[in-house]
Amino acid sequence: MNRENLSKILTEIKNGNLDVDKALEQLRDLNSKELGYATIDNHRELRTGYPEVIFGQGKTPEQVAGIVEYMLTRDTNILATRVTEEMYIKVKQIAPDAVYNATARTIAIRKIDIPSPSTYIAVITAGTSDLPVAEEAAVTAEIFGNRVERIVDVGVAGIHRLYNKMDLIRNARVNVVVAGMEGALPSVVGGIVDKPVIAVPTSVGYGANFGGLSALLGMLTSCASGTSVVNIDNGFGAGFLASMINRL
Amino acid sequence: MNRENLSKILTEIKNGNLDVDKALEQLRDLNSKELGYATIDNHRELRTGYPEVIFGQGKTPEQVAGIVEYMLTRDTNILATRVTEEMYIKVKQIAPDAVYNATARTIAIRKIDIPSPSTYIAVITAGTSDLPVAEEAAVTAEIFGNRVERIVDVGVAGIHRLYNKMDLIRNARVNVVVAGMEGALPSVVGGIVDKPVIAVPTSVGYGANFGGLSALLGMLTSCASGTSVVNIDNGFGAGFLASMINRL
Amino acid sequence: MNRENLSKILTEIKNGNLDVDKALEQLRDLNSKELGYATIDNHRELRTGYPEVIFGQGKTPEQVAGIVEYMLTRDTNILATRVTEEMYIKVKQIAPDAVYNATARTIAIRKIDIPSPSTYIAVITAGTSDLPVAEEAAVTAEIFGNRVERIVDVGVAGIHRLYNKMDLIRNARVNVVVAGMEGALPSVVGGIVDKPVIAVPTSVGYGANFGGLSALLGMLTSCASGTSVVNIDNGFGAGFLASMINRL
Amino acid sequence: MNRENLSKILTEIKNGNLDVDKALEQLRDLNSKELGYATIDNHRELRTGYPEVIFGQGKTPEQVAGIVEYMLTRDTNILATRVTEEMYIKVKQIAPDAVYNATARTIAIRKIDIPSPSTYIAVITAGTSDLPVAEEAAVTAEIFGNRVERIVDVGVAGIHRLYNKMDLIRNARVNVVVAGMEGALPSVVGGIVDKPVIAVPTSVGYGANFGGLSALLGMLTSCASGTSVVNIDNGFGAGFLASMINRL
Amino acid sequence: MNRENLSKILTEIKNGNLDVDKALEQLRDLNSKELGYATIDNHRELRTGYPEVIFGQGKTPEQVAGIVEYMLTRDTNILATRVTEEMYIKVKQIAPDAVYNATARTIAIRKIDIPSPSTYIAVITAGTSDLPVAEEAAVTAEIFGNRVERIVDVGVAGIHRLYNKMDLIRNARVNVVVAGMEGALPSVVGGIVDKPVIAVPTSVGYGANFGGLSALLGMLTSCASGTSVVNIDNGFGAGFLASMINRL
Amino acid sequence: MNRENLSKILTEIKNGNLDVDKALEQLRDLNSKELGYATIDNHRELRTGYPEVIFGQGKTPEQVAGIVEYMLTRDTNILATRVTEEMYIKVKQIAPDAVYNATARTIAIRKIDIPSPSTYIAVITAGTSDLPVAEEAAVTAEIFGNRVERIVDVGVAGIHRLYNKMDLIRNARVNVVVAGMEGALPSVVGGIVDKPVIAVPTSVGYGANFGGLSALLGMLTSCASGTSVVNIDNGFGAGFLASMINRL
Amino acid sequence: MNRENLSKILTEIKNGNLDVDKALEQLRDLNSKELGYATIDNHRELRTGYPEVIFGQGKTPEQVAGIVEYMLTRDTNILATRVTEEMYIKVKQIAPDAVYNATARTIAIRKIDIPSPSTYIAVITAGTSDLPVAEEAAVTAEIFGNRVERIVDVGVAGIHRLYNKMDLIRNARVNVVVAGMEGALPSVVGGIVDKPVIAVPTSVGYGANFGGLSALLGMLTSCASGTSVVNIDNGFGAGFLASMINRL
Amino acid sequence: MNRENLSKILTEIKNGNLDVDKALEQLRDLNSKELGYATIDNHRELRTGYPEVIFGQGKTPEQVAGIVEYMLTRDTNILATRVTEEMYIKVKQIAPDAVYNATARTIAIRKIDIPSPSTYIAVITAGTSDLPVAEEAAVTAEIFGNRVERIVDVGVAGIHRLYNKMDLIRNARVNVVVAGMEGALPSVVGGIVDKPVIAVPTSVGYGANFGGLSALLGMLTSCASGTSVVNIDNGFGAGFLASMINRL
Repeated sequence: MNRENLSKILTEIKNGNLDVDKALEQLRDLNSKELGYATIDNHRELRTGYPEVIFGQGKTPEQVAGIVEYMLTRDTNILATRVTEEMYIKVKQIAPDAVYNATARTIAIRKIDIPSPSTYIAVITAGTSDLPVAEEAAVTAEIFGNRVERIVDVGVAGIHRLYNKMDLIRNARVNVVVAGMEGALPSVVGGIVDKPVIAVPTSVGYGANFGGLSALLGMLTSCASGTSVVNIDNGFGAGFLASMINRL
Repeated sequence: MNRENLSKILTEIKNGNLDVDKALEQLRDLNSKELGYATIDNHRELRTGYPEVIFGQGKTPEQVAGIVEYMLTRDTNILATRVTEEMYIKVKQIAPDAVYNATARTIAIRKIDIPSPSTYIAVITAGTSDLPVAEEAAVTAEIFGNRVERIVDVGVAGIHRLYNKMDLIRNARVNVVVAGMEGALPSVVGGIVDKPVIAVPTSVGYGANFGGLSALLGMLTSCASGTSVVNIDNGFGAGFLASMINRL
Repeated sequence: MNRENLSKILTEIKNGNLDVDKALEQLRDLNSKELGYATIDNHRELRTGYPEVIFGQGKTPEQVAGIVEYMLTRDTNILATRVTEEMYIKVKQIAPDAVYNATARTIAIRKIDIPSPSTYIAVITAGTSDLPVAEEAAVTAEIFGNRVERIVDVGVAGIHRLYNKMDLIRNARVNVVVAGMEGALPSVVGGIVDKPVIAVPTSVGYGANFGGLSALLGMLTSCASGTSVVNIDNGFGAGFLASMINRL
Repeated sequence: MNRENLSKILTEIKNGNLDVDKALEQLRDLNSKELGYATIDNHRELRTGYPEVIFGQGKTPEQVAGIVEYMLTRDTNILATRVTEEMYIKVKQIAPDAVYNATARTIAIRKIDIPSPSTYIAVITAGTSDLPVAEEAAVTAEIFGNRVERIVDVGVAGIHRLYNKMDLIRNARVNVVVAGMEGALPSVVGGIVDKPVIAVPTSVGYGANFGGLSALLGMLTSCASGTSVVNIDNGFGAGFLASMINRL
Repeated sequence: MNRENLSKILTEIKNGNLDVDKALEQLRDLNSKELGYATIDNHRELRTGYPEVIFGQGKTPEQVAGIVEYMLTRDTNILATRVTEEMYIKVKQIAPDAVYNATARTIAIRKIDIPSPSTYIAVITAGTSDLPVAEEAAVTAEIFGNRVERIVDVGVAGIHRLYNKMDLIRNARVNVVVAGMEGALPSVVGGIVDKPVIAVPTSVGYGANFGGLSALLGMLTSCASGTSVVNIDNGFGAGFLASMINRL
Repeated sequence: MNRENLSKILTEIKNGNLDVDKALEQLRDLNSKELGYATIDNHRELRTGYPEVIFGQGKTPEQVAGIVEYMLTRDTNILATRVTEEMYIKVKQIAPDAVYNATARTIAIRKIDIPSPSTYIAVITAGTSDLPVAEEAAVTAEIFGNRVERIVDVGVAGIHRLYNKMDLIRNARVNVVVAGMEGALPSVVGGIVDKPVIAVPTSVGYGANFGGLSALLGMLTSCASGTSVVNIDNGFGAGFLASMINRL
Repeated sequence: MNRENLSKILTEIKNGNLDVDKALEQLRDLNSKELGYATIDNHRELRTGYPEVIFGQGKTPEQVAGIVEYMLTRDTNILATRVTEEMYIKVKQIAPDAVYNATARTIAIRKIDIPSPSTYIAVITAGTSDLPVAEEAAVTAEIFGNRVERIVDVGVAGIHRLYNKMDLIRNARVNVVVAGMEGALPSVVGGIVDKPVIAVPTSVGYGANFGGLSALLGMLTSCASGTSVVNIDNGFGAGFLASMINRL
Repeated sequence: MNRENLSKILTEIKNGNLDVDKALEQLRDLNSKELGYATIDNHRELRTGYPEVIFGQGKTPEQVAGIVEYMLTRDTNILATRVTEEMYIKVKQIAPDAVYNATARTIAIRKIDIPSPSTYIAVITAGTSDLPVAEEAAVTAEIFGNRVERIVDVGVAGIHRLYNKMDLIRNARVNVVVAGMEGALPSVVGGIVDKPVIAVPTSVGYGANFGGLSALLGMLTSCASGTSVVNIDNGFGAGFLASMINRL
């Protein structure tokens, strides 16, 4: 709960307009809703400016649909990530305008229109196999009100492909760079732009990439300044952070 | 074998009431039963106050049922963990009152009633996906004679959800805190209670959580005092230890 | 801050005895003291029942002495862990009754006498080289008001040494078991007692023990129920938790 | 080299004002200076808007001073990180106004004044031992023209200390959160702000923190959105990125 | 793009034969083709002397066939690695002369004949289970114009089998040595030849080989000079490098 | 090839009874047989006293049957490990007396009778789930001519079960101890016998056992002397070595 | 305590020659001696046939000398490993005939003469840097009554050096093979002998040998049968086990 | 020993010119020299075309000088790597023309002049701190008769510095690329040349580079073809292999 809310409640208590027990009650109801298997953070949007996002993995289709059902009662866009087609079928029954993106593995329900700022986010992938993670980032950024430019398959083994897109990259307000294997692309992008680079290691590859560890370590130890890293395959996290920076 | 038993046998030998060879024989029979594929620790309850629990994983349904069959001849509650539905079907045939909990993956057979102390155990989960492990902990604590309060989905990303449950948490005699991903919840709980916290890392997550390693390391290196850790996904171990502390 | 305090302040506001701004101020002062390089958690004792303990490692002797100086103004025992002799010399100048334990690497200042319960804590070490960690656990438990029984060098390679101490171990309310190398001792102790076992892996050893990792993994995967684990070499954490359980 | 430069050179060639060979020569000289042991990236500021920073570790004092000497001929602020006192002594001889920060291990030479935007960066540390890394971040952000607010020792084990600073944290345009051990602080901060959080794991701690690995993994797997991570102990990288975001 | 191309374009601009804007356009088109999900590196053959190879893993059969279709318009041999039978069926429809090697998991389309030098490459496997990786290396080397001699199942546990093939090994211009488990074979081969040895660790084995890590570490720390290592199971990389060396 | 063989050939050359070229030929034929996908080490029995054993994993049923077919032409017992039922069906067609052990995953064909020495090997398992690995060890030892005593499910959590079998254990000439999880059993056995202990870590367990790593590290760092370790799940290796020691 | 002792005591009790309390007392005194910082396992020799060995690392010189002083009262040879010169000086004062081996880092006191069997142990090192570990193995084997043959610097990079020593290796009853780096030597030795091979990985090397991990993994995954592994740098363990096998 | 030698000896035996015992003796003497602590591989040059190189690390100065002394009796250049200044002082006394390179940590004694081929090797470093490893590679290549071009500090964070050196890189017959941190430089170089690239990861860096592991993994998983990797910091291995390829 933010300061204004607390101040208002305290003032009402002082003025005798609010009973202490009721105040305690109110503070409780303000901020979350229990569904038995989940405790939805209603308070999140007030606190961080963004609604809660549903992380599908490890939940049953029924649980995902149940959370969506509750969130439909509120006035925000809804995003679910790491979903399966089974989840989408369940959700579709209660939200006919739900949009499923099979590559990104997301469900999006757009209830309000968030205008994009004039700037845009570039989402850059090193290889074709990195597309699902990149698409998760792009879809996330779009539903939170951002224009996204996608740049595909421009890894360092043929670095001139990257230079062909130089203007698109340098004019972005923030770059999301998605790469597996050795994860070298963010270092190169970071060396040619003066804007933040969000590096996303992917688990794409074989042999000594150890589920994305090699890309992760490569990105963390990158010599290029202005670069930070999110979790392996975490397209959502990158898209969310990119939106946050683009909308500053 | 405990001291009293040994003393009694030694005294009988001294008094000429017991032959040395028979004594050796007796000591052998007292403490375990061989089934060919398993050696059941009959002696365990005398020694530790708790009957042996069946760990289902890696055993065949026939083996699990065989062990249950033998244990039914004794006067204790029976608990099997990490079971499959196949195991339950086999067990059901010889123990019609066996209760199967699909979330916790347990079979419980309640033959005696163990009264709970007045205090209770709180089992707290960071996210919905941690429920199976938490449920294993709760079921275990319950069959060993404890009252359990479940608190669901109160992870640190929306920490006010935790504070809503402050009283329930602070009044527990011991808290079991189940969390995956970064495993930060036990640190926060440990900082607000004056009772033991048992942290259970789960393998829930993706990317750099490496099968629960990140949560495990986070919990081990926690700055909060009064916290200890059990194995990844080890709901049973946490529930058992919580019972032991609650019933001290 | 605990519920009572909050309730009292809210009531005073309601009764008009307390101004909102002053209330906010009061809540702030109640709970911590900033020293520039540290923010001391005054509120901790109210919240958890235990005063804050100074972790010496990574601090300068001046910083340790500065924190001690501030804490001397309050009415609690003071414990500093992972200290060097240099830190002790600095502290001695402002607290002449400070006691330095070179094996445990602790400084203790005893200002109040906390009566021990009738039960005791057993601190068991597998080998001579584990003594510093065990002593840190013992000193910690003692300053928080517990009787400690030390059992030294009874590792599993000569397991009868452990059985010699069976009574002392089985009668303890909680056992702290400190072991390096393969870390097998807690499994054996856990199999013969009906009380909680706190396992402390140590970094003692060579070769494939990898700084305590082998002992840590061994303890985490222990087959004995009722066992939990603290961080490698974390004698303080084990002693603190043992005290918490012993004083339940 | 940026597009404008290239366009100008190509146009001059077209107009007959520039010979092809001279053009090739010019492109070469424009962008770097070889010192034998280092190749200074003169072109960097044009390309990324920021001058190159000297990474002291692994260089001799003579090499550091040599690079500083060359950079003094240009009109930019100079920053060297991971320096020793020996390096400072050498540098002082050629740059009397060089400022050495022993905690942050930096040398700064301020030749131009970069006005700060009205917003500020919060640099938050979990514990006293994290101060050197936090200070490196703060010094870096300051020399690149930013106002920095420092918040010290507010780790999750006493989380109310953090809440005391809520306004300062929530009003920052970007938060740098520095933490060792379990690295849980960024998750908590990320859950209460609507601005980017840059998490810096430190190698502070002992036992199973494995040189910062536990904090790193904890931060990467954080459930809080809007958080990204830089390398272990990489205060410079965090400060640089924070500056980039603050000055967007 | 290489120097000659650049020089020609610059000269044409100077002579007034080429407009600046057209030149920029030309540089862009020269080097790659975008297919939406992939950016094909047309420029690669000019730059490195070898056409781009299709890495099948993580691509859909449609994507693989789409890339093949585009590449068929150019005059080079085509190689796809890590393919499935489904991919082959799709490719066969547009390239009836495509050859599928089920052991090597490759598709090869031979459009031009590259004459082999008089020297040859030896591909040596430690065990039968290493054959798929070895075959990938051999097929790769062959399509790039090399003669290959295969030597099978000559691991160090029966080292005389290797000595039986001594002449074939010593007369090769370069040896590719494929081994799993402890990966000791390259050390032994490296000790008896005066030519480069390319070591390929495989993920074959069980227990502590950790997906090829033990073989990889063994090969990296090999005491034999003249040996270098490629990624685990990377038969393609070894065959490609061997071809490069054999054709020097 | 052993010294006697070499000496005989050299002498024949000297006496003019053998041509140099024929000698070279003979040395080649003596020691191995190439099947295309495998090079069978005929020479092994002369060299080490034991015939080659077929490692089934990673081979096709056809390859296993092909190797068996060739080995049937020689006068030795045949053992194949890590086999599937498919492999057994293929082998059965050419060797009707082949015996399949589904628990141990072995095929054995007994053509000669190797008399056992009077001493025996004890194969001890910590838990029921370790049985497959233990059985592989036992079957291996038996086919190489040894008497085996099996002791099942006597892990350290109920250590008196082990003491019940003390005589059987202490009278064995060599003990094979198979354990997963924390791998503590070999330490305890090693502390009570004066004979070699071969420790076999298994991948049985969950959480932080990391595929047998915790058991492996525990056994390697064991404080008990006289213990050595084989690879995770390597029952064959343990049985083979035990046979070697028992038959010394 | 072994069965005979127990039987005798039980019989005496039965005959009324021994009081129960005295019997309990006797069992206690028989088996160990407490020195405060150590509990010496007097019973070990009866139980395992070998006296306890002092592990110097992590003990003070005073503690080592104190243990030696007590052991001098008994009639066995004394061996201390991982000692420093300081420890030797302390021990020398109470045991003038103590022999210090600086390479092996051992102190040996020979009080009785143990005759060697006619067979011998070969200790083989891959490189000069492995000598300290090999020497620890050799010294250990010698003091327990064995003849040792040392074979130095015969690693696989020049494998003919090994073949020069073939007779010495093949005639040994057991081979101890000490190697760092890729640890390939035991595989090769194991392939040419019909006797047990004890592999000792050493921490010698650099880069990706990770403190002996590469050698350890290489040896564990060795394809050669009859090989087992002890801990990294554990020359003592190898020498002790070799003695046990040689004296069977 | 190579085939010709063996053939000659066998022929002499056949002709009665050589006795069998003497032949066996001769084969032994031909190939190595025992110094007690080392077995020098005289035969190496015949077998591989290169003399043995002395690896200084882990040897005493006396041992290094002793090996040099013996090698001086033969007619080859001598190279010692990983030496200390103490070793150099000892060697200087017996070989006054020994040359010490403090950066590369090598001693070189040039007794014969090996003419370089017309081609050359490029040794490229990513940063100033990588110089010692690069210099070891360069010195090694030079003493084995190669021309070396050094290119310094051209890492990917300012990739135009690399393009400035394009001609020098593309005209080399083989490129050695030395890089720490994320190890991305070999990927970029491999993408622009048609010659072999030998990648050398260095342990330079901090945080999550884990002693060179991040660079190693990055290089192994590189997407650029034609690249292989040697051990971390193994400048010697890279220089040796580069020489082998350059002199093919």
